[in-house]
Amino acid sequence: MITGKNYVGNVLSSINTTTFKTFNPKANTENEIVHTEASEVEIQKAIYLASEAYKIFHTISGIKKSEFLNEIAKEIELLGDELIKIFCIESGLTEERAISERGRTLFQLRSFADLVKEGSWVEATINVADSSRKPIPKVDIRKMFVPLGPVVVFGASNFPLAYSTAGGDTAAAFAAGCPVITKSHPMHAGTGELVASAIINAAVKTGMPNGVFSNLNSSGIEVGVALVKHPQIKAVGFTGSILGGRALYNMAAQRLEPIPVFAEMGSVNPVVILPKAVKKKASEWAKTFAKSITLGSGQFCTNPGLILGIKSKDLTNFIQFLGEETIKIESTCMLHPIIEGAYETNKSKMQEQKGLQTKASIDKELTTNYGHQAIATVEGSTFLKNTTLHQEVFGPFSLVVQCKNSAQLENIISNLEGQLTGTIISEKGEAEQYAPVVRALQNRVGRIIYNGVPTGVEVCAAMVHGVPYPASTDSRFTAVGINSIKRWVRPFCYQNWPDELLPDELKNENPLGITRLVDGKKTKNKL
Amino acid sequence: MITGKNYVGNVLSSINTTTFKTFNPKANTENEIVHTEASEVEIQKAIYLASEAYKIFHTISGIKKSEFLNEIAKEIELLGDELIKIFCIESGLTEERAISERGRTLFQLRSFADLVKEGSWVEATINVADSSRKPIPKVDIRKMFVPLGPVVVFGASNFPLAYSTAGGDTAAAFAAGCPVITKSHPMHAGTGELVASAIINAAVKTGMPNGVFSNLNSSGIEVGVALVKHPQIKAVGFTGSILGGRALYNMAAQRLEPIPVFAEMGSVNPVVILPKAVKKKASEWAKTFAKSITLGSGQFCTNPGLILGIKSKDLTNFIQFLGEETIKIESTCMLHPIIEGAYETNKSKMQEQKGLQTKASIDKELTTNYGHQAIATVEGSTFLKNTTLHQEVFGPFSLVVQCKNSAQLENIISNLEGQLTGTIISEKGEAEQYAPVVRALQNRVGRIIYNGVPTGVEVCAAMVHGVPYPASTDSRFTAVGINSIKRWVRPFCYQNWPDELLPDELKNENPLGITRLVDGKKTKNKL
Repeated sequence: MITGKNYVGNVLSSINTTTFKTFNPKANTENEIVHTEASEVEIQKAIYLASEAYKIFHTISGIKKSEFLNEIAKEIELLGDELIKIFCIESGLTEERAISERGRTLFQLRSFADLVKEGSWVEATINVADSSRKPIPKVDIRKMFVPLGPVVVFGASNFPLAYSTAGGDTAAAFAAGCPVITKSHPMHAGTGELVASAIINAAVKTGMPNGVFSNLNSSGIEVGVALVKHPQIKAVGFTGSILGGRALYNMAAQRLEPIPVFAEMGSVNPVVILPKAVKKKASEWAKTFAKSITLGSGQFCTNPGLILGIKSKDLTNFIQFLGEETIKIESTCMLHPIIEGAYETNKSKMQEQKGLQTKASIDKELTTNYGHQAIATVEGSTFLKNTTLHQEVFGPFSLVVQCKNSAQLENIISNLEGQLTGTIISEKGEAEQYAPVVRALQNRVGRIIYNGVPTGVEVCAAMVHGVPYPASTDSRFTAVGINSIKRWVRPFCYQNWPDELLPDELKNENPLGITRLVDGKKTKNKL
Repeated sequence: MITGKNYVGNVLSSINTTTFKTFNPKANTENEIVHTEASEVEIQKAIYLASEAYKIFHTISGIKKSEFLNEIAKEIELLGDELIKIFCIESGLTEERAISERGRTLFQLRSFADLVKEGSWVEATINVADSSRKPIPKVDIRKMFVPLGPVVVFGASNFPLAYSTAGGDTAAAFAAGCPVITKSHPMHAGTGELVASAIINAAVKTGMPNGVFSNLNSSGIEVGVALVKHPQIKAVGFTGSILGGRALYNMAAQRLEPIPVFAEMGSVNPVVILPKAVKKKASEWAKTFAKSITLGSGQFCTNPGLILGIKSKDLTNFIQFLGEETIKIESTCMLHPIIEGAYETNKSKMQEQKGLQTKASIDKELTTNYGHQAIATVEGSTFLKNTTLHQEVFGPFSLVVQCKNSAQLENIISNLEGQLTGTIISEKGEAEQYAPVVRALQNRVGRIIYNGVPTGVEVCAAMVHGVPYPASTDSRFTAVGINSIKRWVRPFCYQNWPDELLPDELKNENPLGITRLVDGKKTKNKL
């Protein structure tokens, strides 16, 4: 049952008088449940509990952490249809999407459970002593990853499950050994509370310290600001707009003790469609990209918002096809009137730019809050001169840039901001001929795709979802896949430490049986 | 031969009229060579060359990079006595120290050469496709580390070789595939130029692109500021004061595209001496720490500037011994009159604090520019109230805090800022009894030492030299050891990329024979 209250540690709490409701964009009405904003007292309490919980939680074994993570997954499953229902009425997304996103969330939680149960992720590294070394004896040094401390996670508007309350950031932080306070996304506060209840149940059942998790409601920015500025908070995870992410990054950088902010922000995900591919498969690629552009009303950070080609009759045909295919697809509901409104505003702003031609667009009044897709095109030289054209329009919109030649194409790519993904559409042997273009694209992105679409982010160890600014604030980490745990840990080493006082990961006997790097050799053996 | 000029890529250049000289603190005179400050034109040229060089250098094989790094080491050796001589007259440090620091520098360069020659450091990770997976076929994803781009390295005053021109930051950046521009430290610009000439010779001999390295002179802050603010610079390495490091960090965070700054800054390196150890071995530990405190005139970031114990007659004895032993040691020359002046100022400021007692101090006029050591003590409650007492005094000074009890000791540790190291001095079985104290210390440091001294940083894979702020600006990385390469790289992945277009590290055949993580299994096998 959704109460509208905050979870301050294990306790439901609502002492504030400020409240808000979520919105059902499909029905175009407010949802009934009244959510109470977290108060200053509750924020302080949640942070205090998190720092106290950290003292215990950061030393908890990988096996116990895996039980906690698996139990969260189980408790989320137990929420059953109630979760799916609230997800749909708070997001306008389909039941099918809700179920698939829940599946992804459970998979992420269980992947991290497996990772910490096995235990080698701590990258235990041992260099043994050598008392006979000249001129100075060599000391014994043993290193492993340890958690940073309490982490704040901001729920994402476009992933009410997979990148919100118990999403990738939270799962990775728990796996690392960091308590988490989520700043619930106001557009799906009910979904957030339900998932929070699952986490709290799991924490109690598996004996985690009170404060390992809190979930705070807020419809404004104050709660988030208070959390990020607090000295006891040691890192921040955020998925959302460049404006929001950069504001948090700036706040964290200006603290007396700056802390890492991993913000996964906007991206136009450039797609380069090479001449032979355009010539041979214009209609096929047009169909494929029309689907990718309109998927989930274009509300993905990997949505292909920019397509680059070299001017030709074939490219003109492709643009024609792409427009036709895109408007053939039925429009779908966006997440919230605010998001739909911003989409229309940004799309219009784009369409008003000098030299931009709208090739296809659904203008007719469809159902309220639906995202009306559009395809536009512009000359390469115009695009180069006007950086407004480089900006993301969050929603089902894509801009095709007609470059003069491959030099201009390369130049345009080099002048783009950092991007989550880049895509090359090529006939066999063609990409090789455009090596400088491919290289330029690699330098701007975190993931490069060959003959595919950027939407759909596989959750696996090899995935990179974290890239040059402004697609993210720290390109040295990924937000998706098990390596995302590294955002929330730091290396720590022991020098000449007595074996019996070392954590199990570093003991001579290797009681956990993990893989370790001992004097340069990977081994599971004891010392 | 030292010319006093800048290296702008492979070319010696001096177009500015502003010049400066280095200083010989032992002789208390200026050195003869005139160094020319880098001009705006030279800065821009160096950056342009670095970005052009990056296009080639980031794709160069590990074997070629290892040749380059080994050749740098060889060229530095070839500089022979000229390097040792200039090192000494620009730093006041001994010939023995110069030789040992050169040894360390060569070792670092060769360690990185070995690392990139072997090649597995890129952490190649492959998840193969599965077209039969339901509901969505699984794509092929392959990940590896790639270099960030041109890096700026600031020379450190206290390590003219190991943490300056061809020091740890530069070696790691070259190994990663990043061109480097060093902002030479003005106190040892001659040493810097000589080492720069070795790098340039090595670059030319091994066919590296012009611009892979530049060395710019500057006695003020303008050159550094211009470098850090330039859009083509993608990361910064710095070793020095909190004031300097934080200024660079702020500048980098305020850029349109924020970039990572790894600044290794101040630290007081708290040492906890437990009651039984004080009782049993007061004189022994006093001797050991007197040596550590005065080593290199205390000019190490790991210098033990703070010793914490529990008030007792034994601790009083220890303080007495420590004072006696410390002033027995002959004072040595500091790096520069500015550093010696700052030491005297900071020491006096400390000594003027209410409640602080100077227990031993060399006040008599010794040779100019020498660091006159001192030991002081203060009550725990006084220390807690006055954060001035928490600050580093860079030089041979240490403060012993007498805590009321173990709870106050724990409280004091929890209230310290982040530290490079922490040390526990314990009799057998004693550390276990002080588990909360040990845990509190672990949370504030990057390296924890048992019954040893923090000075002396072993260069090995398990070393961690990078810690909670303000000891460094990003605790998730180490500045020492081969893992320091990770500061200058980002993960990058290919999706469904044709095998023949993949880099060798990710090809099916595994032509480099490196260890890779293929579908969760570590293997050197081909696919």
